[in-house]
Amino acid sequence: MKTYDQISIGDKAEVEKTVTETDVYLFAGITGDLNPAHINERASKDTMFGGRIAHGMLSAGFISAVLGMQLPGPGTIYLSQSLKFKAPVKIGDTVRAEATVVEKLEKGRVRLETKCYNQNGDIVVDGEALVLAPKG
Amino acid sequence: MKTYDQISIGDKAEVEKTVTETDVYLFAGITGDLNPAHINERASKDTMFGGRIAHGMLSAGFISAVLGMQLPGPGTIYLSQSLKFKAPVKIGDTVRAEATVVEKLEKGRVRLETKCYNQNGDIVVDGEALVLAPKG
Amino acid sequence: MKTYDQISIGDKAEVEKTVTETDVYLFAGITGDLNPAHINERASKDTMFGGRIAHGMLSAGFISAVLGMQLPGPGTIYLSQSLKFKAPVKIGDTVRAEATVVEKLEKGRVRLETKCYNQNGDIVVDGEALVLAPKG
Amino acid sequence: MKTYDQISIGDKAEVEKTVTETDVYLFAGITGDLNPAHINERASKDTMFGGRIAHGMLSAGFISAVLGMQLPGPGTIYLSQSLKFKAPVKIGDTVRAEATVVEKLEKGRVRLETKCYNQNGDIVVDGEALVLAPKG
Repeated sequence: MKTYDQISIGDKAEVEKTVTETDVYLFAGITGDLNPAHINERASKDTMFGGRIAHGMLSAGFISAVLGMQLPGPGTIYLSQSLKFKAPVKIGDTVRAEATVVEKLEKGRVRLETKCYNQNGDIVVDGEALVLAPKG
Repeated sequence: MKTYDQISIGDKAEVEKTVTETDVYLFAGITGDLNPAHINERASKDTMFGGRIAHGMLSAGFISAVLGMQLPGPGTIYLSQSLKFKAPVKIGDTVRAEATVVEKLEKGRVRLETKCYNQNGDIVVDGEALVLAPKG
Repeated sequence: MKTYDQISIGDKAEVEKTVTETDVYLFAGITGDLNPAHINERASKDTMFGGRIAHGMLSAGFISAVLGMQLPGPGTIYLSQSLKFKAPVKIGDTVRAEATVVEKLEKGRVRLETKCYNQNGDIVVDGEALVLAPKG
Repeated sequence: MKTYDQISIGDKAEVEKTVTETDVYLFAGITGDLNPAHINERASKDTMFGGRIAHGMLSAGFISAVLGMQLPGPGTIYLSQSLKFKAPVKIGDTVRAEATVVEKLEKGRVRLETKCYNQNGDIVVDGEALVLAPKG
């Protein structure tokens, strides 16, 4: 965990996970997003993605994990997040979520660039987070 | 499901779910966001929230469910989402995610206002989505 | 496990489980049955049931467990089941599923009376099963 | 959602999901039906089914989802269901559950034909449901 004072521009943290069918199915069940794109192999194999893909918000959850677990870490209050879904994540892909500090603002706020990549280095989610860092 | 041509400005859809400990714990396990704020009652009861709260991205998942299941529905491609986390969702709160069409853009794109409310009518997540609606 | 030859009319077996919010929420996620009656405390508290109830098919799953695990047990082939949903199962209720052999038919088939009770002894599900017992 | 008055004979609704190992294992855990046919690949590969199969009641859960989510939808009270298990559902099969209104009875009751198909169009579950439709 880093307090506001300990954070420097350029600080970076990441998490990485292989997204499984289990992740996608549980995520569908929790959110109620049982869109065929996520849970119907028959219907999704004829789409432009060629099969079931993970929910974009699942990758966004990995960003939340980086911020809440590492940078700034426990005690962080999540203020806002922008997300651009650039490419699909297929079942079996390994997603790396990275957060990099780009600005320190007044009142303890920190702006981070947040990107998710697949195992080929393609950006799958791009965006920015604004958080309130712990005071320490 | 609504195709681009069938969508009108002002169209609205929603889902509602009581968020349980189960939801929060599974979401934590899937995303790896095991921040004490979500899964540690002892540590979180002394925070400003007075106990464990749900992940903001869980509520965002309900927005994804509205877009992917109803408006526009199956066939939708999620392009981007902005999220402002305005208030915490506690375990046991009932979250209603609403999406309202605010603009039809060229190339089949649709912009929606997306808000999540708790059972008291407080906005817990505010933001906007941009999607590619099904062509039909 | 009992083979067809080892089964006698009147043989009985049972399982019992307290149905939790976790059971109901996972069941909702797996089946996609996120009916407000099961997952929305706000909406369901004004219904005749006064809150969220378990899926009837969850109790039916307990019948399946008795047949597949005990009587006749592993090797059983499930042919048919009738189900009358007599009373709601609320979160926290303890359901006992009982199966009693009522007839031995030709070709290895066995007919069983199948009932689920709550902790007050009320029948919540009533019906009959037809199975193909293991030959041994 | 359709009220009793809005329902016509011939009305039809469906859901479709690819059944995964996750679904089967969670269903086994919830119901306690850990019959080797469902959760033991070694033991089940020598059976007539050649591997693990889904619980029949899991497909029945999809019928429950159609009735409770779509036709009649939220507010429906499930009165009874008959189920004939006609063919196994293997892990990876895509099940489509269909409900078709066949009769409108007195006191708000509706009878529906309920069938589940696999991706090859084979009927895996056949039966009928009786529900109390919402009054509106």
